[in-house]
Amino acid sequence: MAAELTAHELIAKHRPTLDQALEAIRTRAYWSPHPEHPKAYGENGSLGAAEGKAAFDALLGGRLDLGQPGTDDWVGGEVSPYSLDLGITYPHADVDTLLPAMRRGQRAWRDAGAETRALVCVEILKRISDRTHEFAHAVMHTSGQAFMMAFQAGGPHAQDRGLEAVAYAYVEQVRTPETAEWTKPQGKRDPLALTKRFTPVPRGIALMIGCNTFPTWNGYPGLFASLATGNAVLVKPHPRAVLPLALTVQVARDVLAEAGFDPNLVALAAERPGEGIAKTLATRPEIRIVDYTGSTEFGDWLEANARQAQVYTEKAGVNTVVVESTGDYKGMLSNLAFSLSLYSGQMCTTPQNLLVPRQGIRTDEGPKSYDEVVTDLAAAVGGLLGDDARANALLGAIVNPDVKARVEAASALGEVALASREITNPEFPGAVVRSPVIVKLDGAKPDDQTAFMNECFGPVAFAVAVDSAADAVELLRRTIREKGAMTVGAYTTSEEVEEAVREACLEECAQLSLNLTGGVYVNQTAGFSDFHGSGGNPAANAALCDGAFVANRFRVVEVRSEV
Amino acid sequence: MAAELTAHELIAKHRPTLDQALEAIRTRAYWSPHPEHPKAYGENGSLGAAEGKAAFDALLGGRLDLGQPGTDDWVGGEVSPYSLDLGITYPHADVDTLLPAMRRGQRAWRDAGAETRALVCVEILKRISDRTHEFAHAVMHTSGQAFMMAFQAGGPHAQDRGLEAVAYAYVEQVRTPETAEWTKPQGKRDPLALTKRFTPVPRGIALMIGCNTFPTWNGYPGLFASLATGNAVLVKPHPRAVLPLALTVQVARDVLAEAGFDPNLVALAAERPGEGIAKTLATRPEIRIVDYTGSTEFGDWLEANARQAQVYTEKAGVNTVVVESTGDYKGMLSNLAFSLSLYSGQMCTTPQNLLVPRQGIRTDEGPKSYDEVVTDLAAAVGGLLGDDARANALLGAIVNPDVKARVEAASALGEVALASREITNPEFPGAVVRSPVIVKLDGAKPDDQTAFMNECFGPVAFAVAVDSAADAVELLRRTIREKGAMTVGAYTTSEEVEEAVREACLEECAQLSLNLTGGVYVNQTAGFSDFHGSGGNPAANAALCDGAFVANRFRVVEVRSEV
Repeated sequence: MAAELTAHELIAKHRPTLDQALEAIRTRAYWSPHPEHPKAYGENGSLGAAEGKAAFDALLGGRLDLGQPGTDDWVGGEVSPYSLDLGITYPHADVDTLLPAMRRGQRAWRDAGAETRALVCVEILKRISDRTHEFAHAVMHTSGQAFMMAFQAGGPHAQDRGLEAVAYAYVEQVRTPETAEWTKPQGKRDPLALTKRFTPVPRGIALMIGCNTFPTWNGYPGLFASLATGNAVLVKPHPRAVLPLALTVQVARDVLAEAGFDPNLVALAAERPGEGIAKTLATRPEIRIVDYTGSTEFGDWLEANARQAQVYTEKAGVNTVVVESTGDYKGMLSNLAFSLSLYSGQMCTTPQNLLVPRQGIRTDEGPKSYDEVVTDLAAAVGGLLGDDARANALLGAIVNPDVKARVEAASALGEVALASREITNPEFPGAVVRSPVIVKLDGAKPDDQTAFMNECFGPVAFAVAVDSAADAVELLRRTIREKGAMTVGAYTTSEEVEEAVREACLEECAQLSLNLTGGVYVNQTAGFSDFHGSGGNPAANAALCDGAFVANRFRVVEVRSEV
Repeated sequence: MAAELTAHELIAKHRPTLDQALEAIRTRAYWSPHPEHPKAYGENGSLGAAEGKAAFDALLGGRLDLGQPGTDDWVGGEVSPYSLDLGITYPHADVDTLLPAMRRGQRAWRDAGAETRALVCVEILKRISDRTHEFAHAVMHTSGQAFMMAFQAGGPHAQDRGLEAVAYAYVEQVRTPETAEWTKPQGKRDPLALTKRFTPVPRGIALMIGCNTFPTWNGYPGLFASLATGNAVLVKPHPRAVLPLALTVQVARDVLAEAGFDPNLVALAAERPGEGIAKTLATRPEIRIVDYTGSTEFGDWLEANARQAQVYTEKAGVNTVVVESTGDYKGMLSNLAFSLSLYSGQMCTTPQNLLVPRQGIRTDEGPKSYDEVVTDLAAAVGGLLGDDARANALLGAIVNPDVKARVEAASALGEVALASREITNPEFPGAVVRSPVIVKLDGAKPDDQTAFMNECFGPVAFAVAVDSAADAVELLRRTIREKGAMTVGAYTTSEEVEEAVREACLEECAQLSLNLTGGVYVNQTAGFSDFHGSGGNPAANAALCDGAFVANRFRVVEVRSEV
């Protein structure tokens, strides 16, 4: 097939972007090629706000035909957390037909080499970027994120994480040269001389299992890391968040075909209600890589059972913030209030346990007792979410009935410092919108420990009274070790306490944000700069993104012969 | 403790070596800082031949006290394959005392940073290099390798593999900067600004499980990769090959102490006969990394059971050479004869199955029938080993009774083209020395398939008659996929066949040597240039050495705070 998009064109168009991404992961300074502001779109081929909305609306009630082989049925039943029935159907695959078809294009994809693969991936991301407004609605109406968050986290931030993975994958593959001339002296005899050729080869077909809350942000790193290292990628979306990944697959297939490759290198595996195909797919011999974001239970199952594959998991943890002292009490409270509220705490990075010494803390506003700190934090959250319009814009919608049930049950766990408030969304009256609940617990009481030492995913925070800073650090350490943590925060003006918290995070392997009082939040990480997860505690076995995330997705085969 | 060996001194002494190693793994051109010739030693602080032999002799019958905590007994029972009773005892550890002691020095080792760790490792390797003559005897009298091979493979080549791992570990850790200033524009508002600090942190204690045949060569990559990435390393040698690794541990402990670190960062776990401590150690929660070389059965067990650890295994495979045609018949025969004979075929890289079309092959000496090829190869091996002195120098000794039994049983598997010959070693009359047996088998016969499709470790080669070149490639492909392969060789003058073999190796992920007729052999790989194993077929889950071998031995912890 004649490629409409040649390697030459791809290099001219995207090599500078790849080079900037390579520089960014090396310096970890701020960089992104993907604009965050909705108004930045609408020119140079990208969809503006109205066009994006229209494109999304045009999808509703229709069939998304990806042209995949082995499509034996059409499935789909997404109902938005905003109560919109998407009514879209997707191909249901006969995997015995689809998987062999996915392998057919692998040789050409392998032979294209690391640079062409990277630049095809950049082109896929560019086209997704151009449709960010459309993707924003798709992410909003599957995850329940509010529009602006769906736009940013589901759009540019997800694209950043995808491009970051492409950059890591590229640089890892070109660490070994394509050829080497090896000449070993033999004293007076002729030297031994070999020509060596090194080829990065894929492992096989990669399975990316998407999640409900961040289908693109959590899905793109694995998808693009696997594709850029030469693997075919089968995308198994969460049944409630199919659309953003189905659109992604569609774009990838279009670009692959235009670049002269087999579009079946990327395919979608949508499923019937209750079909549970992830287990079946993850243990198929053709599947050699699995990326997964979701529950600890299923992540552990994958690690134990998908033994024929490299398995990368982001599971769940219990995130802690140590509140020991601060030089900016108001800044701390507003920063924490925002972190607890954003997307109703439905982020794997949202703090759950706030450890506060029961004798109180030192602040720039004088000493504050444990009760005062909790009351003031409750007031800060209440103030932040007091206006319903702003509350809706920050909280989004509760993603599923389990989260709703947890919020409602949380108030029975202890003294409620801030009750969860039910908020109406005038645009989407069916949406379940809830503000965070803050519950006071005692770090010394066994019953309370049972509550706060388990993940309570959703808008639930525990203000845990501890005996001392040392007690807080010890509890932090135990929490990371036993339950894992995607994030840790700490507020302290004491060098000694800072050092103790830092040492606990270094030893237990968790990412630490210190004294955040401004516009950066503990639950947000930036592509190209921040690591998401550490891969070294029970919350996740991999970090986004580092060498380990890509290095084992391919192998290098050497062919050597005498000169 | 005041360091006798400062970071400054280490940089002045070893940074140039590290830089050369970094350049070598990038270009994969020939390089080694470790001389191969025995006469290169004896000056500048290194032991000469007589001094090395004397140092080895002085160890015999003694106790090797490493000064380890928790030593509850002294164990040892090594008897050389050359029948020398070493009579050396080693510390037996109470692991409940030793493991906690090994953790105590980890913080200082972590805080020393990647460069200091790398240079301490280079110093350890330098001191081992200086004692290469002593190590050569230790390797010879545990593995059964002949002296020259024990000297080279157990000395400079092993040291190369160790240094290569140090270089990979170093470069992987410094891919992320120590600090970053992240400044994100916010339109007209002040930019968001964070200071980020990144620290490579170890996983914990690494366990290196050594093998009988190549205690240093196969052991050093894992040992040094783990140590250079900040982990403590517990070395569990094979009970019949303790000495080379015990001496390694001793040197490492000395250097660590002199550089101001806790010597318990490296320790030995010798065991009582039949104690089988590898299983116990590998599943201890403190053990977070396992490196293993040995049987497929135990390697698979480790992968399935040491779930708390990163597990790197080199197991067993069935190595194939496709013999389809050659432009240098004599060169091919002598090259293959050497490969089959070296160390009595007791290398994981020795060819086992030689696939020869039953209608014969084209050569520069005219067509040769299958029978002629096999007869000529038998004659080449016979000629190479006709002289007993040369045979002893090449074959070494049979490492254990299992290998001896396999050689003896092999002649019953089919028509014997070359019988194994019993050779006397005048210096060590107790050594079991056997030349290779070559057995003719038919690739189309099920019974024969059963024989050649299983690893027959030792001096046993099968000349397998196949229907055609295509049949050979198909059998090669199936062998790699089902049994794994550390090496593949091929002889062909046909571009088409070469392409088919190469494609099979790329798809099944095996390292290929083409048309070797000179002084490089399919069973030898060079540090800094050749990959040993691919990590992509059942013979091994890792390759020596690449990014994937080191990238997951540490994690990066980020601490970020507002500017």
